[in-house]
Amino acid sequence: MIEGGIELSRVAVVGELLIDLISSSVVKDLGEASSFGRFFAGSPGNLVLNLNGLGVDTALLSRLGDDFFGRAYLTHLRSRGIDTSFVQLDPQANTSLVFVSKSQSTPQFMAIRGADCFLEEPEDIHNFLNSVEFIYFTSWPLSRKRTRAVCMKLIALALKMGIKIAFDPNYREVLWETNQDGKSFIKEFMRYCFIVKPSEDDSYHIFGPGKPLDYIRRFHEAGARNVVLTLGHKGTIISDGRRIETLLPCARRVVDITGAGDAFWSGLLFGLLNGKDVFESAVYGNYCAAFRIEHEGKDVILPSVEALKAIFEAGDN
Amino acid sequence: MIEGGIELSRVAVVGELLIDLISSSVVKDLGEASSFGRFFAGSPGNLVLNLNGLGVDTALLSRLGDDFFGRAYLTHLRSRGIDTSFVQLDPQANTSLVFVSKSQSTPQFMAIRGADCFLEEPEDIHNFLNSVEFIYFTSWPLSRKRTRAVCMKLIALALKMGIKIAFDPNYREVLWETNQDGKSFIKEFMRYCFIVKPSEDDSYHIFGPGKPLDYIRRFHEAGARNVVLTLGHKGTIISDGRRIETLLPCARRVVDITGAGDAFWSGLLFGLLNGKDVFESAVYGNYCAAFRIEHEGKDVILPSVEALKAIFEAGDN
Repeated sequence: MIEGGIELSRVAVVGELLIDLISSSVVKDLGEASSFGRFFAGSPGNLVLNLNGLGVDTALLSRLGDDFFGRAYLTHLRSRGIDTSFVQLDPQANTSLVFVSKSQSTPQFMAIRGADCFLEEPEDIHNFLNSVEFIYFTSWPLSRKRTRAVCMKLIALALKMGIKIAFDPNYREVLWETNQDGKSFIKEFMRYCFIVKPSEDDSYHIFGPGKPLDYIRRFHEAGARNVVLTLGHKGTIISDGRRIETLLPCARRVVDITGAGDAFWSGLLFGLLNGKDVFESAVYGNYCAAFRIEHEGKDVILPSVEALKAIFEAGDN
Repeated sequence: MIEGGIELSRVAVVGELLIDLISSSVVKDLGEASSFGRFFAGSPGNLVLNLNGLGVDTALLSRLGDDFFGRAYLTHLRSRGIDTSFVQLDPQANTSLVFVSKSQSTPQFMAIRGADCFLEEPEDIHNFLNSVEFIYFTSWPLSRKRTRAVCMKLIALALKMGIKIAFDPNYREVLWETNQDGKSFIKEFMRYCFIVKPSEDDSYHIFGPGKPLDYIRRFHEAGARNVVLTLGHKGTIISDGRRIETLLPCARRVVDITGAGDAFWSGLLFGLLNGKDVFESAVYGNYCAAFRIEHEGKDVILPSVEALKAIFEAGDN
């Protein structure tokens, strides 16, 4: 995107590209599911596609298996105009998979991780971070020692270059290496973060039971500068550490909430890249999430922010 | 089964229990498949269910992941009366998966192995081999050093106890550990085998291009005592090293050939357990395979040998 008419600024996205295998029908137990739909997934993959819809350039650092799924995912990204030059293909490990139950309550999931655990540093790390204004991480690459080291190296360099850290603290103990204190690490990691966007569920997994405003406070105390706490149909609380605002959802109908969080991120980052503050940026995020929630197909490309405004601004006022 | 009215003889079955994920529609490339059906699979699993249909007791040594799929597979076996006391649950590794394309030519497949690579020796190895007359192996547990050691220990003990080795040489290089010469091992393994049942495809993967009678000769030269070479719609060649016979398929219609080979094994072993020679036993195998080929549902329980005879013996004469 042209900023000030001169500089091209990008978002670097680091994390897992996954194949989601979602049970075709509602089941009580994932083991009962007898068929699965295959979806290209993982928050980083969703985010680059959403940002692309909004006209934002990205640099995606991720690792797929050199297998049927990995190659198909690459084709999928390329066919949508995504720059995949920093996407690695692992010669041995499989493309990471997540089986998910379609469920009326909290879905069950089972991750079969492979290539994402072997993410390596980009060959040309300076090229990867060139013109980058924000670098986004999920918890997945932090959950393994090996890939955590890659992330920490990127973060050290990013901070030195004035690149801001955006972090999705989607921490789940089950994804973490055994004998590693994931919760403590995630809390310590907050000090690097310009912005974090936890859900209430994420906050529960990190801090235990609590009220939304307690969670906001605890993320700030841990060091996060801006906190955007999503509460599902109850809306979103935004805090810059001095001011707190609440934003109500603007979707006019709920078709499918899958991917709403990743869509929110794209609007949020779009706003921040365009010099808006976190409160205004969250409004864009809210629009993008609402668009995702109103559409069944997770593949539908996000329209421009102008188009989204036109759709949702009536509901926003 | 009662033999001579006194002894109960069983078949010990060693190998992989798999979750097959088969593309719901015909695809050119497995990466294109957008949905998959889930099936309880792996030749050892099919074999114990088929033998159970024929009234033969089994002892199944296998390892599943302690996950949604593994627990569902256990339930599936138990609900059909299979003794699962030697089936292990791995606390860490996932239940091994195989993605398969539905295809008009040779299907593509992608194995994501987990628990099957960590098969351990049964806690009470003598109990496992108690009253066993045949012990059956596939190539999967031989393909990894760790589980190969388990197999070789079982084989040494089995041979000492007079238990005969039945081996499905379904060798595929891609399943073998890198830097291990699988082909040489499989050939050397033949010396232990009372009976092997390769397909033409298996033979090609082990010996390279050749004619059926060449393959038979090479299996014998490597040490296999009885060779049953299946040729699909062209039938089956049976050899005891002195005599060779050909058996034509007896299925009256082809609905689905999946699992035909495992069904053949069950009839073959049933005959041998009942004191028939390999030629007569192969006729039972042929009936079982035909029954599987004529039925869509791979879950349909095999009828008794008497019932199968009644169905197919007209076609056999």
